[in-house]
Amino acid sequence: MTAVEQREGWTVRLARRPVGPPSADCFEVGVEPAAAPGPGEVLVENYFLSVDPYMRGRMSDAKSYAAPYEVGAIMLGGAVGRVVESRDAGLAVGTSVVHDLGWRDWATGPASAFRSVDVGLGPLSAFLGALGMTGLTAYAGIVDVADVRPGDTVYVSGAAGAVGGIAGQIARIRGAGRVVGSAGSAEKVSYLIDDLGFDDAFNYRDGTIKELLRRHAGKIDVFFDNVGGEQLEAAVSAMNPFGRIASCGAISNYNQGTPPPGPRNLGMLTGKRLTLRGFLVGDYEHRRGEFERAVSSWLADGRVRAAETFVEGVENTPDAFLGLFTGRNTGKMVVRAAAAVREAPTA
Amino acid sequence: MTAVEQREGWTVRLARRPVGPPSADCFEVGVEPAAAPGPGEVLVENYFLSVDPYMRGRMSDAKSYAAPYEVGAIMLGGAVGRVVESRDAGLAVGTSVVHDLGWRDWATGPASAFRSVDVGLGPLSAFLGALGMTGLTAYAGIVDVADVRPGDTVYVSGAAGAVGGIAGQIARIRGAGRVVGSAGSAEKVSYLIDDLGFDDAFNYRDGTIKELLRRHAGKIDVFFDNVGGEQLEAAVSAMNPFGRIASCGAISNYNQGTPPPGPRNLGMLTGKRLTLRGFLVGDYEHRRGEFERAVSSWLADGRVRAAETFVEGVENTPDAFLGLFTGRNTGKMVVRAAAAVREAPTA
Repeated sequence: MTAVEQREGWTVRLARRPVGPPSADCFEVGVEPAAAPGPGEVLVENYFLSVDPYMRGRMSDAKSYAAPYEVGAIMLGGAVGRVVESRDAGLAVGTSVVHDLGWRDWATGPASAFRSVDVGLGPLSAFLGALGMTGLTAYAGIVDVADVRPGDTVYVSGAAGAVGGIAGQIARIRGAGRVVGSAGSAEKVSYLIDDLGFDDAFNYRDGTIKELLRRHAGKIDVFFDNVGGEQLEAAVSAMNPFGRIASCGAISNYNQGTPPPGPRNLGMLTGKRLTLRGFLVGDYEHRRGEFERAVSSWLADGRVRAAETFVEGVENTPDAFLGLFTGRNTGKMVVRAAAAVREAPTA
Repeated sequence: MTAVEQREGWTVRLARRPVGPPSADCFEVGVEPAAAPGPGEVLVENYFLSVDPYMRGRMSDAKSYAAPYEVGAIMLGGAVGRVVESRDAGLAVGTSVVHDLGWRDWATGPASAFRSVDVGLGPLSAFLGALGMTGLTAYAGIVDVADVRPGDTVYVSGAAGAVGGIAGQIARIRGAGRVVGSAGSAEKVSYLIDDLGFDDAFNYRDGTIKELLRRHAGKIDVFFDNVGGEQLEAAVSAMNPFGRIASCGAISNYNQGTPPPGPRNLGMLTGKRLTLRGFLVGDYEHRRGEFERAVSSWLADGRVRAAETFVEGVENTPDAFLGLFTGRNTGKMVVRAAAAVREAPTA
């Protein structure tokens, strides 16, 4: 194999915008050569790619907080890799970096598009999960947005997902008296209780959320919402006075053209003095230093566990992404790019 | 007339709980003698009574933040009067007081049930409005809950009501760049613009709230909501990133057995990082001192105006109350009790 051949790899481009649930034919999977870095640029070989629910929003052209993906362009998103060629004095070959250039084995771009990571803090894939965007989302949501206090009962929807599992564990570390989660299968419920140490958990398919919440959580002080829809109405009813709701996402709505009507009980916000606050991780960059120190120490001492669901090969990234909406992942869904497969074929 | 005859007056009791909109037959109006004060008690002659939308909630027996009214008991609520007999050393005859003993010409109770007011701050009736519960509600909502900042565009629903008018004017004093209100008639729209100095206002009956809001307010930073329902969805769509919604009340829902579904667009809370917060004035008692100083000075220098709609006679309190739900009031709806009518018959 020549050097040139080594520098080809999979790419995934947006082929068309979905209407309703996305499907495989929204994506165009191909093999492309890596671009040689120009002055001030580096070439990175990816090891792991992130697929995240928010990407569904960017596949539409509706105005939103993040610019829509361009049809025909490579799908953007979190990735970690190593610098293999550098024409920038500040970013040396061999450096591990995280970036947002997305679904590809090879990424070339200006050095400023890459952020070096401290590999002493955890495994490389963790920089897409517990030590990365989803971990910082959980941290900011629990600490800044929901302001979890000692003794609080905290309820997390989508708790077996990448953000929810970390959020529940950080809530416990912040002194929550009781942490309850919901997920979409009996296996995930066991994972929450047995592996992540949630006090209780339930399968949201086992009845109405309202009734399940009453039985498993009782009155709650904090709701960390990843799901939206029916969850919000049930949680508002279950909330104690001065309760706080952190709206992290609403995966139940992302594939619906017209979202369903909202909760009937928002009148309770006034009487109960509830706060419902939406947030985006991008506003909490100033927390990254303390967040990385805290979570890496909790990962090391076992107070935080972070499951990962791996899919092999960049060519299977669409499949990994689609699996988010059917709950195929426990913890963070991560795609192993060719370099990771090559270095650890059996992982 | 003997002293005993002088100490009879109108009372209004809850006759039955309403289902849906309340009506006159929910109330029992009668004449009763004033109770003589026992040790530690005072007898107060009321001058003005307050009718407020929140009272509708207390007429039902549904669990809420305030205890339901008892059927057969006198309707509780804000009132101001003067002490005419005192058996408490701390509360002298002649003192002007505010209390919550409600719809009656005469009120007897322990001295602790009455709070003396500084009549130098404003006219007695203002202690039910701009200097009282509704004024403090507006103040806390704008200052603490919505945290209005210089340059903000602030939209107030129910702006011609007791709370809304004050809220809009305080927002302006806090530096809001643009203050827009909605109300239910052309006269009220003129009142908001010409008398209260709102930058713009609209009649919510003139189209969809969404379209009217777009035309009259554009993008908004703060929504002070007294109405609920369709208002909230329209405001969420109109909000700028990091916008704040203070949920003060939802008069549009109070008479509905089953509230209508909530906004479809709550998913925007996350992307726009909006905060939606309910609040009750009772949590802001610590603000009363600064609030009274501030608003009394603004009333004195004309920066805050506070309309009052007067109804004469305690026997007409049910009528005044029912008028709140059809928008009969501009500003604070106040009932003039017998003493106020006697002292100023033509007011």
